[in-house]
Amino acid sequence: MDVEAAVFDVFGTLTDWRSSVSGELSGIGDRTGARADWAAVTDDWRRRYRPALLKIFAGELPWRPLDELHRLMLDEVLTEHGLDGLGEAERDELVRAWHRLRPWSDAPAGLELLHDSPVVTSTLSNGGVGLLTRLAKQAGLRFDCVLSAELARSYKPDPRVYLMASELLEVAPERLLMVACHPDDLAAAAEAGLRTAYIPRPLEWGPDAAPVEPPADVDLVAADVIDLARTLTGGAG
Amino acid sequence: MDVEAAVFDVFGTLTDWRSSVSGELSGIGDRTGARADWAAVTDDWRRRYRPALLKIFAGELPWRPLDELHRLMLDEVLTEHGLDGLGEAERDELVRAWHRLRPWSDAPAGLELLHDSPVVTSTLSNGGVGLLTRLAKQAGLRFDCVLSAELARSYKPDPRVYLMASELLEVAPERLLMVACHPDDLAAAAEAGLRTAYIPRPLEWGPDAAPVEPPADVDLVAADVIDLARTLTGGAG
Repeated sequence: MDVEAAVFDVFGTLTDWRSSVSGELSGIGDRTGARADWAAVTDDWRRRYRPALLKIFAGELPWRPLDELHRLMLDEVLTEHGLDGLGEAERDELVRAWHRLRPWSDAPAGLELLHDSPVVTSTLSNGGVGLLTRLAKQAGLRFDCVLSAELARSYKPDPRVYLMASELLEVAPERLLMVACHPDDLAAAAEAGLRTAYIPRPLEWGPDAAPVEPPADVDLVAADVIDLARTLTGGAG
Repeated sequence: MDVEAAVFDVFGTLTDWRSSVSGELSGIGDRTGARADWAAVTDDWRRRYRPALLKIFAGELPWRPLDELHRLMLDEVLTEHGLDGLGEAERDELVRAWHRLRPWSDAPAGLELLHDSPVVTSTLSNGGVGLLTRLAKQAGLRFDCVLSAELARSYKPDPRVYLMASELLEVAPERLLMVACHPDDLAAAAEAGLRTAYIPRPLEWGPDAAPVEPPADVDLVAADVIDLARTLTGGAG
C-alpha cells in the first residue's frame, strides 16, 4: 500500500487504558481505604465517553479538552459507585492517569520500525497535545508528529479531524493511513477519504469482553503494529 | 533551572539553512546551467523573511503557510539575481529544500539526551507542521512534540505563538524554556513570560558574517544543544 503517512488512534489501539487506569484506581483504593470493583469503575468511566461525545456533536455540551471531559465523567461515575469520598487530589490524579497509559507490548517496536522507514507517523487521538506528548514520551512510543483532535477543537469521528491531519501533514487523504482498533474511527476516516488499517485489540475491554467483529471494508488488517510496519515498509512478515 | 519543557527554534538554532539551501541551489545550477553566487542568493532569500513577516503583522500581507511565503520571496530573489529562467519544478524543489535542512552536528545528540530526561521537547518554529515533521525525521532530530506558529495562524515573534505552546503543552510559561540563537525570538518569548536559553550559532550567516552580540537578559547561555541538555538535566558538563 502506497501511503506517505500513518496516523494512529492511541486509547485502545496503542495503549491498554483499562489495565492502566484500573491499576491507578486500585492504588488509590489501597491508599485511601476506598473499596470497589475497580475494573468495573474503569469500564463505566470509559462507557460514558461515547455518549458525552454525541452530546458535544449535538451541541448539548460545549467542546472542552479531553482532561475536562474525563473529569466530568469521573465525578459522575464515582457517585454511581458510591465513591463520593474521593477528594480533589485523587480525582486530579485519576484524570492524569490517562497521560500515563501503558502501551501494548508490540507498539513501541512497531513505531520504531516505521520511524526508520520513509512513512511519517503521528498520533491522531482525542487526547490533547499535552496528554499525547507526555504519554508517548513515558510509554516509549516514538512518533514523528503529535496531532490531536484538540487542534480542530473537535473530536473524532468528526471528519474535520481527519482532514486537519491531512492538511497539517501536507499529505493527500488518499496517501494518509488511519490506524485504529475501532471500526467507527476507521469508517469515519474512510468517509473523509483516508486509507484505513485495522488492528484487533481483543483485550481492550478485558479478557471477558465480547469479540469485536473486524470491519469488512478496511484497506488493511494487521495483527499488531510490528506486522503493520512490515507490511507498509515491505519488510519480512 | 527548573523547567518542564523546552521548545526550540529550528531555522538557524538547530539547522544550518545556509549551507543546506545554497547546496541545493548550486545543484540546480549544475543541472540547468544557471550560474550565480548561490550563497548570496540564499542570503538574499533569507533576508526577505523578516520584512515579509513585518508586512504580515501590519496586515499588508495575509497570513499564509511558510512554504507559500518562501515561494513568494524566492520568485522575487530569482528575478533580482537574473535567474528568471528557473522553472516551476526547480522553484518547487527549492521551497522543499527547507524541509531537508541539515542539523548542526550537536543537535541530534543533544535532543536525544533531553528526550531521555523528564524535560519535554518540542519545535516552536515558523515552519509548518508538515515541514517540521519531515525535517526532524530526515535530520534525526528527536522531539517529543511538533509545534508550529502555523497552529496559531501567525509567526514568531507574535506573543500568541509562545502562549499557544504553553497552552497546548499544558506547561505554565514560567516552566517553559524557549531555546534560540536569535535575540529577538528570545526577547519576545521572555515578554510572553517564558524562560529563555541562548545558543550562539556564529556560522548561521556563513564564516564571514559579523558576530551576533549575545543577549544580556536571557536565563541561560549554552554552547550548544548537548551543553544545554547537560545543564537542564544536571549531567556532567
